[in-house]
Amino acid sequence: MDWDTLWLNCQAATMVPGSPYGAIRDAAIAARDGRIAWVGRRHDLPPEHCAAEIVDLAGCWVTPGLIDCHTHLIFGGHRAQEFTLRLEGARYETIARAGGGILSTVEATRAASADALLRAAEARARERLAEGVTVLEIKSGYGLDVETELRMLRLARDLGERLPMTVRTTCLAAHTLPLEYSQAADDYIDLILDTILPRAIDSGLVDAVDVFCEGIAFTPVQAERILRAARDYGLAVKLHAGQLSDLGGAGLAARYGALSVDHLEHVSEADVCAMAGAGCVAVLLPGAFYSLRETQPPPVALFRKYRVPIAIASDLNPGTSPVRSLRLTLNMACTLFRLTPEEALAGATRVAARALGLQQNYGTLECGKFADLVSWDIDDPAELAYWIGGAAVMGRVRHGKLLGDPRSAASGEARN
Amino acid sequence: MDWDTLWLNCQAATMVPGSPYGAIRDAAIAARDGRIAWVGRRHDLPPEHCAAEIVDLAGCWVTPGLIDCHTHLIFGGHRAQEFTLRLEGARYETIARAGGGILSTVEATRAASADALLRAAEARARERLAEGVTVLEIKSGYGLDVETELRMLRLARDLGERLPMTVRTTCLAAHTLPLEYSQAADDYIDLILDTILPRAIDSGLVDAVDVFCEGIAFTPVQAERILRAARDYGLAVKLHAGQLSDLGGAGLAARYGALSVDHLEHVSEADVCAMAGAGCVAVLLPGAFYSLRETQPPPVALFRKYRVPIAIASDLNPGTSPVRSLRLTLNMACTLFRLTPEEALAGATRVAARALGLQQNYGTLECGKFADLVSWDIDDPAELAYWIGGAAVMGRVRHGKLLGDPRSAASGEARN
Ligand SMILES: [Zn+2]
Ligand SMILES: [Zn+2]
Repeated sequence: MDWDTLWLNCQAATMVPGSPYGAIRDAAIAARDGRIAWVGRRHDLPPEHCAAEIVDLAGCWVTPGLIDCHTHLIFGGHRAQEFTLRLEGARYETIARAGGGILSTVEATRAASADALLRAAEARARERLAEGVTVLEIKSGYGLDVETELRMLRLARDLGERLPMTVRTTCLAAHTLPLEYSQAADDYIDLILDTILPRAIDSGLVDAVDVFCEGIAFTPVQAERILRAARDYGLAVKLHAGQLSDLGGAGLAARYGALSVDHLEHVSEADVCAMAGAGCVAVLLPGAFYSLRETQPPPVALFRKYRVPIAIASDLNPGTSPVRSLRLTLNMACTLFRLTPEEALAGATRVAARALGLQQNYGTLECGKFADLVSWDIDDPAELAYWIGGAAVMGRVRHGKLLGDPRSAASGEARN
Repeated sequence: MDWDTLWLNCQAATMVPGSPYGAIRDAAIAARDGRIAWVGRRHDLPPEHCAAEIVDLAGCWVTPGLIDCHTHLIFGGHRAQEFTLRLEGARYETIARAGGGILSTVEATRAASADALLRAAEARARERLAEGVTVLEIKSGYGLDVETELRMLRLARDLGERLPMTVRTTCLAAHTLPLEYSQAADDYIDLILDTILPRAIDSGLVDAVDVFCEGIAFTPVQAERILRAARDYGLAVKLHAGQLSDLGGAGLAARYGALSVDHLEHVSEADVCAMAGAGCVAVLLPGAFYSLRETQPPPVALFRKYRVPIAIASDLNPGTSPVRSLRLTLNMACTLFRLTPEEALAGATRVAARALGLQQNYGTLECGKFADLVSWDIDDPAELAYWIGGAAVMGRVRHGKLLGDPRSAASGEARN
């Protein structure tokens, strides 16, 4: 066997279920053509192995590349002024009058040039890269018109071309109701179904379709129109549901075989059971929970009881989760939602891959998957969730190739 | 006038009270011999000015160097295993049997070589450097014996020599009761007063003295013995008080003219008033509040009412606040304690300097103070508290001299 690279002398947190972290002590990992060709105990390496390059990892822990499976990474402007107004005690109307809220981000996103949007989003994506993220989901949903929704999805694709990471796009045109359609939600759904979605699909810009199903956004009936259309196109679907109230969105999503239901602070046991039956992932978003100072955490015990896989994500967005670190959300998931550090890490690797339908290629260190590896300056994988912040990335490999010094990833790094 | 450096074309958040952020638009800042020699509107620069070097900051926001005024940065090991056990539902006794709790850190700190302690602490200090911190307080308190307390304080001094930052040391020998003295707290106080403190002072290792006054630590009577001794030595004092219960520590600290009282979730109005009278700073530690999932925030409204200055700090420690970012605590102070972004930034600059008795030299951009500047990739200073994580540092100047690329500060940076 001829390998391109063989990594020796590491502790592999493979994240394969069955043992804590799927850990292999004194492991070896081999890659060929960008994929993992062998992984196991160094002691068990086939005697006749041969690799073009051998790398000694000096005893480091290695995990799969991290996966941020729910972000709104592309947006114009920020909402620091609104953040300030709220803390100064301004009332809702004052903030609205000062141009706050999600529609202010829609306005800023529509007004921004593609270049300005790309620059800001690329800086945020590079922060993810630097902390070991190799797969990133990006949603549209701040355009809410044909042109800007398409622009957002195209920029997400561009980011995947420019950066050494895998970007998955999700069309979330049904994020909120644009001003032009107030009191005419169904007409806006028509626009999505008749124009935005078909054109985005025609242009090859859509990996999945998502809807924000909530009292302040779209009803289950409206959401279902979109889920049905997406299914008819053969697209994967996801649903924002149960963030502020339980409208039965999780059960609806399960009926449509959604990859994931996201948020889920408010969900019934029956719907959790339905999610289990449909193989839906529960994507928990502790950054939004923290920022909104919510008090009812998602029912983690129910997810465990029904074996609904739990992913975690940053939900990076300028309003309710301006979280610029996925690593930090591992700690939040443990501290705020009482996940164990192993569940948190699985939630940002193996289960996150499943939430994107990428479990065949990403999320664990197993033969046949892409060789996306991160080595860490830690002596216990629980440290990835235990420390709050802290730069622990030592090295990163994507599709078998070593990326640059993680500390310079934030400034510039070409696609490998 | 001959200046060493003149920075032009910046927005200066001077943090001088009187206007939001003490902001000066289109500002100029000049340094000579490491100190700020001129700061104001560029338009008002004296016509005959002359500088050896002129730097165009391209419109960046500039703040004073950040100050982390309460850390336990030096310690052996970490407590990721204990973190895991707790999340797996282990009971207190199980954790104690598995060697958890603060005494496990004492054991690990005593067992570690000075070199290992220094390496770990230096890595954490460099993270602070990278995020724009130029002044750092470090407490002892994981030694609890003569030798290890002195070693910790000496290492803190060493860090101040090795790194381009100002380190202030605080002797916190009265952090918790060492095992050897269980049931003999007063004998341990004797050891502190008779041996640890005098020897540390003799060696020039003590800038301030601190006590953990709490049900699980030392009583106000015990704390007072130490405060009195410190005062007799002419040393500044601080007090950990009101974290879990109100034992009247804040009032005690005020009677001894403490620089600060730290934590303060539980404090009476009378004691807040006493703090105001004595000029004590309230140092709030949102990282510990977050990690312990406390529900009663400190009485910010009372501090405002009595004009007690509010500082914020990371409280970096391996048990209750493994927070490796001061920037992040700005967001926590706003989100969890409802400080405004301006109060949070003042808390990590101007007021933090006062909590260390350094207000003559640090904490604002004013003539005569050290030229410690940070330039940021933001367009509103509120962004420093609004974003959760995110690397926004553009450049750093300490005592008038430019430091290296902030992204490489975490790996290595010589003292300038
Ligand atoms: Zn979302
Ligand atoms: Zn402390």
